[in-house]
Amino acid sequence: AEAPAKEAVCKACHGEGGKKPLMGAYPKLAGQNKEYLVSSLKAYRDGQRQGGQSAVMTGQAKMLSDDDINALAEYYSKQ
Amino acid sequence: AEAPAKEAVCKACHGEGGKKPLMGAYPKLAGQNKEYLVSSLKAYRDGQRQGGQSAVMTGQAKMLSDDDINALAEYYSKQ
Repeated sequence: AEAPAKEAVCKACHGEGGKKPLMGAYPKLAGQNKEYLVSSLKAYRDGQRQGGQSAVMTGQAKMLSDDDINALAEYYSKQ
Repeated sequence: AEAPAKEAVCKACHGEGGKKPLMGAYPKLAGQNKEYLVSSLKAYRDGQRQGGQSAVMTGQAKMLSDDDINALAEYYSKQ
């Protein structure tokens, strides 16, 4: 599937197709369950996740619409 | 690697080797970055994650010691 517009931002930390995160503390996204990716992104967006790198991710997720979240979760689940 | 003792509990929802979760809302764990798995489990254990299935996971993670978390993260990162 063609990468969604905002994928370039995710790629910076999670790597091409979410396969090679920059740091071990960041998760691989490739092949993850779409529904889980949607619920995680929404949890970050709603400020429901603290700890670890959540501050960074909360900031990122706040810039995503439901459609962005759906498109990105679909894309990464297919990698 | 031989599965850690408490892996049977994880397997019930995340599937053999964390490869086939029962529901799309649960994440695949196989091949995930070990450091990320440790930080996620500790975030659940410390009640730092709400939303999604966090209530279930918080309950599970509260039963894990640091050594359990380390062994499980190591195991799943190698699947």
